[in-house]
Amino acid sequence: MRGEAHGLLRRGLEGVRGLSALQLPAAQTSSHRGVQARPRRERQADARPGRERLQGRGGVSRGQGVTPAAPEPEALSPDELRDAWPALSAEERAEGLKLLPRDTAEDLFFSISPREQVELILALPQAEQRSWVRGLAPDDAADLVQEAPTEFRDRLLGMLDDQTRREVQALLAYREDHAGGLMNPRFARLRPDMTVDEAVTYLRRQTRQSVEMTYYAYVLDSSQRLLGVVSFRELIAARGDRRVSELMKTDVRTVDADADQEVVARLFRETGLMAIPVVDAEKRMKGVVTVDDIVEVVSEEATEDIQKLGGSESLGEPYLTIALNRMIRKRAGWLAALFLGEMLTATAMGYFEHEIDRAVVLALFVPLIISSGGNSGSQATSLVIRAMALGELRLRDWFRVIRREFGAGLALGSILGAIGLTRILLWQAFFNTYGEHYLLVGLTVASSLIGVVTFGTLAGSLLPFLLRRLGFDPASASAPFVATLVDVTGLIIYFTTASAILRGTLL
Amino acid sequence: MRGEAHGLLRRGLEGVRGLSALQLPAAQTSSHRGVQARPRRERQADARPGRERLQGRGGVSRGQGVTPAAPEPEALSPDELRDAWPALSAEERAEGLKLLPRDTAEDLFFSISPREQVELILALPQAEQRSWVRGLAPDDAADLVQEAPTEFRDRLLGMLDDQTRREVQALLAYREDHAGGLMNPRFARLRPDMTVDEAVTYLRRQTRQSVEMTYYAYVLDSSQRLLGVVSFRELIAARGDRRVSELMKTDVRTVDADADQEVVARLFRETGLMAIPVVDAEKRMKGVVTVDDIVEVVSEEATEDIQKLGGSESLGEPYLTIALNRMIRKRAGWLAALFLGEMLTATAMGYFEHEIDRAVVLALFVPLIISSGGNSGSQATSLVIRAMALGELRLRDWFRVIRREFGAGLALGSILGAIGLTRILLWQAFFNTYGEHYLLVGLTVASSLIGVVTFGTLAGSLLPFLLRRLGFDPASASAPFVATLVDVTGLIIYFTTASAILRGTLL
Repeated sequence: MRGEAHGLLRRGLEGVRGLSALQLPAAQTSSHRGVQARPRRERQADARPGRERLQGRGGVSRGQGVTPAAPEPEALSPDELRDAWPALSAEERAEGLKLLPRDTAEDLFFSISPREQVELILALPQAEQRSWVRGLAPDDAADLVQEAPTEFRDRLLGMLDDQTRREVQALLAYREDHAGGLMNPRFARLRPDMTVDEAVTYLRRQTRQSVEMTYYAYVLDSSQRLLGVVSFRELIAARGDRRVSELMKTDVRTVDADADQEVVARLFRETGLMAIPVVDAEKRMKGVVTVDDIVEVVSEEATEDIQKLGGSESLGEPYLTIALNRMIRKRAGWLAALFLGEMLTATAMGYFEHEIDRAVVLALFVPLIISSGGNSGSQATSLVIRAMALGELRLRDWFRVIRREFGAGLALGSILGAIGLTRILLWQAFFNTYGEHYLLVGLTVASSLIGVVTFGTLAGSLLPFLLRRLGFDPASASAPFVATLVDVTGLIIYFTTASAILRGTLL
Repeated sequence: MRGEAHGLLRRGLEGVRGLSALQLPAAQTSSHRGVQARPRRERQADARPGRERLQGRGGVSRGQGVTPAAPEPEALSPDELRDAWPALSAEERAEGLKLLPRDTAEDLFFSISPREQVELILALPQAEQRSWVRGLAPDDAADLVQEAPTEFRDRLLGMLDDQTRREVQALLAYREDHAGGLMNPRFARLRPDMTVDEAVTYLRRQTRQSVEMTYYAYVLDSSQRLLGVVSFRELIAARGDRRVSELMKTDVRTVDADADQEVVARLFRETGLMAIPVVDAEKRMKGVVTVDDIVEVVSEEATEDIQKLGGSESLGEPYLTIALNRMIRKRAGWLAALFLGEMLTATAMGYFEHEIDRAVVLALFVPLIISSGGNSGSQATSLVIRAMALGELRLRDWFRVIRREFGAGLALGSILGAIGLTRILLWQAFFNTYGEHYLLVGLTVASSLIGVVTFGTLAGSLLPFLLRRLGFDPASASAPFVATLVDVTGLIIYFTTASAILRGTLL
């Protein structure tokens, strides 16, 4: 049975390998003194000893010179499994995990996304599910439950021990993308009247529970209000008979439990802190958000913005593993909406059909002119959306942005206009392409470009402000959205300019 | 003098306030028990005590109940200054800093970008420059020197104390965006044969130098090779007579000094570690990268990708503070290049001028069709670029991407084709817009849409692979770049389809 499953997986891996025609150079990271990759190893071992405890295993330290056992010749390496991971079904992944040593398998399990964890657990025999769920820290378990299908949630909660279940249920009350949903409710607590020696003993006891023991210990009063913070470094460095209240810093940056994760991420970037305590409306401390979780948040927010900026809904799952029909649905919505908007170009073109009929030469420049407006709008919107996400731009800055972009648009439009005019003059000189009124045609194209690029720049930079003011995500002002908006307007600018300049000659 | 400067700054602030017509709701963060915002406060106090030491100030702890002095009525608050910051000149910023208490001013100084730090220092009287430069940790000082104009670098280096200068010079040998440029060369070191008690005493002594004392202590042999790592938590929890070599973990993830920061960031995201040691080619430990620096890296990489995706060069400085002419230059390059590429549309249109002349109705749909190709290409390229940046997609995955995008493109093209055909049939029924051959026109538009959208999707998804294969940044496959590529090809697809379907009737 086991051999058979292994064979199945092997064939799966071969299939994946068969596809690789191009090879990426080896990543510039190395696993020093370790045969096996150990994702999230240190963190689990150090910060969350509860995982090991719950698994019924012993201490986490490892004597020097105890080298990991060499893999058997036919054994699956974790790196192989990780490489093939995206291409495997949940069943194949479950089979793959069984072939690894338990601790290596757990490391892999802890490092994948909550959605993948759910799929994996659902693919396991019921008797084996609990031991995997129990290995998770409260905040990770909460993510798992949140990702699970509704009918499966109660069973997942039932697998947890009582304390963790209570904590997970408290966490589930918070939105996943709020500070309360990011925090770990287990953190190192001290009382202000403890001596340093008492504090160290007390912390030593707390490490036996799975507290998020990163860098700071938090000093709380009897009603859980945050009085101050003291770092482990300060505790190590201080004399043993000093009071915690003398050591602690009292001006602590905190974040509300219902603060958006983007706000939390910005605070981390501004302050360079390793951890920020989360408080409720009564300033009672509820948990702690650590900077390592913020790396993921910053990365996810950027992924969302980039995908929206490209003109689709945010996928919400990795590109390679999202089901094709789900991906198509996420992309079709905006694409169809933009198509409907873009139909106005056909209407606008129809409105100017008479002009085109009389001077087909005008039609030749339609794609050139409207795409230039779209390109400049795309530049402007992506710059503004990113500056907003970074907190560099706020709503009240809209007028300063207008002034900047008006200047930039005029300059960029003039550059393109000059290039366009030169091109028309050159072609005219060499091929006599544009007939006797080539100078007027060139003038029409050049001044249209200035107008269209300036409009595109302004539209691209202001649309994110407008969306945000109306309560939408500014990143929805995608490059294609702006381009569509500018296409229709660009046609009107172009043909109106043409009417003004060419009336009596070509038109 | 001081009053005058204050007045000047005040007027500057009023001017900035005058611009704010729209107001952002107050951010959901609060500074608990602190009147003044203290950016990077904890980190400097805890992780880099050397800053305080170098400033000649005393201990960093603060007794409970010592509340910060209330600001004088006319005093400038740090929040006010921070809000107005982007709008102020370097001179005004220097004036503003002088109005703050020294430690608050330092916190603000430490939290701004190296480029802003340089400008600020250059705006200060020469006699005051050194005390600010000396406050920086070695890695921050290296960033500062790197950002400074060449002729100013030696003077900056001369302001540092001997040890820091040597460290900064060593750091300057690394590229800013490599692991060696990110790392702090001061970290907590232990020897394997120390007892836990000896280790704690030794660490206590090291905290008096400004070591990056976050969470781990690194165990090195006599030639600085990394043997293992031990966390402060483990040291606190362990019996005093145990050896460090028994406690330490020996399978440590490390990163090469010349690894790209994107690789380092990915390793942090995969492992959830708080710090990763940096080693040279001989596996000697050179420094440590901490996760709080990675938040900035992840954010910067995303900024770069988003700005490139929008079709401009990466700005490299905040949107509001970059000089307008520098921003225009960063945007004009790509815009002009794309414009030159887009000129091929005029050539292509000229090639089909005869067809347009005979059937002007064809021209009406040109913007609709080519923009649909551009939009679908923009979706595909942004999805693929992001998946590449996250490490989800590697070069060898190109064929799987082709298969996915071919399916997605056909599906999306069919959806748009159906909408387009419906639109033509509706308009024909109500307005008789398209004459007797409306069905053939509809068929031309629908099948062109399928072809153009499929091509756009494939081009958008493969261009990043191609660029990466050739050694360029895949993010240069911007939405406008792909749109331009697809515009030209889309015209050819459209008119070729039209020739095939309409020959003998309209053409």
